[in-house]
Amino acid sequence: MPKINDEFQFIRKITPTYHKQSKLILGINDDAALFESDVHVDQVVCMDTMVEGVHFIRKTMKPFHIGYKVLASNISDIAAMGGKPLFYLISIAIPPTWQEDELLQIYDGMNQLAEKYSIDLIGGDTVSTSEKLVITVTIIGGVPKGKRLLRSNAQAGDIVFVTGTIGDSGAGLEILLQSEKKDKLNYNSNEQFLMKKHQLPTPRVDIAKLLINVSRVSLNDISDGLASELYEIAEASGVMIEIDADKLPISEALRDYAKTRALDFALYGGEDFELVGTISEIEWPYLLEKCKNTNLEITNIGKVYNGTNVYLSNKELLEKKGYNHFK
Amino acid sequence: MPKINDEFQFIRKITPTYHKQSKLILGINDDAALFESDVHVDQVVCMDTMVEGVHFIRKTMKPFHIGYKVLASNISDIAAMGGKPLFYLISIAIPPTWQEDELLQIYDGMNQLAEKYSIDLIGGDTVSTSEKLVITVTIIGGVPKGKRLLRSNAQAGDIVFVTGTIGDSGAGLEILLQSEKKDKLNYNSNEQFLMKKHQLPTPRVDIAKLLINVSRVSLNDISDGLASELYEIAEASGVMIEIDADKLPISEALRDYAKTRALDFALYGGEDFELVGTISEIEWPYLLEKCKNTNLEITNIGKVYNGTNVYLSNKELLEKKGYNHFK
Repeated sequence: MPKINDEFQFIRKITPTYHKQSKLILGINDDAALFESDVHVDQVVCMDTMVEGVHFIRKTMKPFHIGYKVLASNISDIAAMGGKPLFYLISIAIPPTWQEDELLQIYDGMNQLAEKYSIDLIGGDTVSTSEKLVITVTIIGGVPKGKRLLRSNAQAGDIVFVTGTIGDSGAGLEILLQSEKKDKLNYNSNEQFLMKKHQLPTPRVDIAKLLINVSRVSLNDISDGLASELYEIAEASGVMIEIDADKLPISEALRDYAKTRALDFALYGGEDFELVGTISEIEWPYLLEKCKNTNLEITNIGKVYNGTNVYLSNKELLEKKGYNHFK
Repeated sequence: MPKINDEFQFIRKITPTYHKQSKLILGINDDAALFESDVHVDQVVCMDTMVEGVHFIRKTMKPFHIGYKVLASNISDIAAMGGKPLFYLISIAIPPTWQEDELLQIYDGMNQLAEKYSIDLIGGDTVSTSEKLVITVTIIGGVPKGKRLLRSNAQAGDIVFVTGTIGDSGAGLEILLQSEKKDKLNYNSNEQFLMKKHQLPTPRVDIAKLLINVSRVSLNDISDGLASELYEIAEASGVMIEIDADKLPISEALRDYAKTRALDFALYGGEDFELVGTISEIEWPYLLEKCKNTNLEITNIGKVYNGTNVYLSNKELLEKKGYNHFK
């Protein structure tokens, strides 16, 4: 398929043919999209950008993965507020090196998640650029009035929890970057698992739904790495956090690595899009039970104290590092 | 001032120190921003991207202008729906060729409009890129319930109106591209007027406020050129539009050009960010009076008929052309 030669034709191809959300009045087609306010929810909104050569290269991410992941990272931010995603907009700056069928695969990747969570694509912008693909997604969600889950809610005595397993995405990225193997069949099942966690992460909307029924939860999603996210909670809440290295949920696949390597991925790897937060000791058993009943993985990894900073079990101060775009 | 070397420090510099909108619960600082729903309004949202080398070059736009204009074009889209802008988010992909003080000037440009219209900056993303600056703004506004002004509202018999003067921005861009004059003093006052209309356009929020009190209005903002916007109204409404070349509001400055050149700028120039729409003959005098009373310029430029397409006075078919990013 050739390059795009008419943005209006391209926009017609990516315009949804029906609405999923009943509050949506008008999607793509006018100067702006329009939806009804819902008195029962507060609106939650965020924006994420992925740049070719920075957030992905063609070797690590197929077009489908790029679309899937940029929307997944946005959905994850909504989940980290306790919200339900509703609408999204896409801005895409397209260089001449990208073919129309590849671009449509990016939208297919987004569509897969949009279908799963009944999110409507309602607008955006389609423009040209000279060199690197830049894709920005804005997502709008709703969180039941007054129920938002902020970073600043942690208190001394809380249990620290994390969902799923962590570090897989970072390890998957390393495999994708290092290996020259082209065919999926050349990777063993553990490698395939880790690469998939990097390319197709699952945002934790399901657990967010459970968390808004707890009386007090602090919450973050893991985009920059566990250590960096824990520091954000500690600083926003004015508390000290201590986690136990032996309690961190490490996947079978990541256990193939030396223990220090696996720990490094778990603490600093980033892009797992799991949720990390704190909850009172009293409510922890309730949450654990609820998660068990619905087959959702959640793990107690440490505790909150009075003080500052984030420590590993042996009182070792964790590094605050995460990915910094300008270092 | 040096390049950015820490995105977190940079984000602190651009984070507003207070909220203007009372419905805002949480701006920059957590995974997502949060605001209260307002039962009296429908939410209106859109997204616009400007790319270095495509939408601007350093010769035509100072950093302040870039920030001002990307937000102005978004505000204009909200106005074209009859809405009031409330919140915005910025995603910026920054190449190493841009210094921090230039980037802060981009934000200053946005701030000028945000102050004027009491819009809060509530989030975004700050990332690096290798080559060209890409800036994307998402804006969220409110339009009184059921009052939205759509392109599809035009009916045969309507008056076609346009606000302000048109074609100035296109002429201003040509001056900026052609001239090697560096100092503002080397331009005459007409040239300065036209360049300013390109760099610092005024979105028509004030007229949008009047229009939502009219029983039926179709409306578009002029981003791609009058001809292209009229075609959008004609197609969305299933009508024919005829405009009178002699009635088009041409500024004193643009009258310096040969008549055909001025007409070309007015019809196809784009980026004027004026409003174009249609209204019933019965309500037109009311609107005209209201605009006069508040010193807002509005002009009757033609009429709506049964049929298709857009014609100039002498039955000449207008070209549908506007800027196409991939031609």
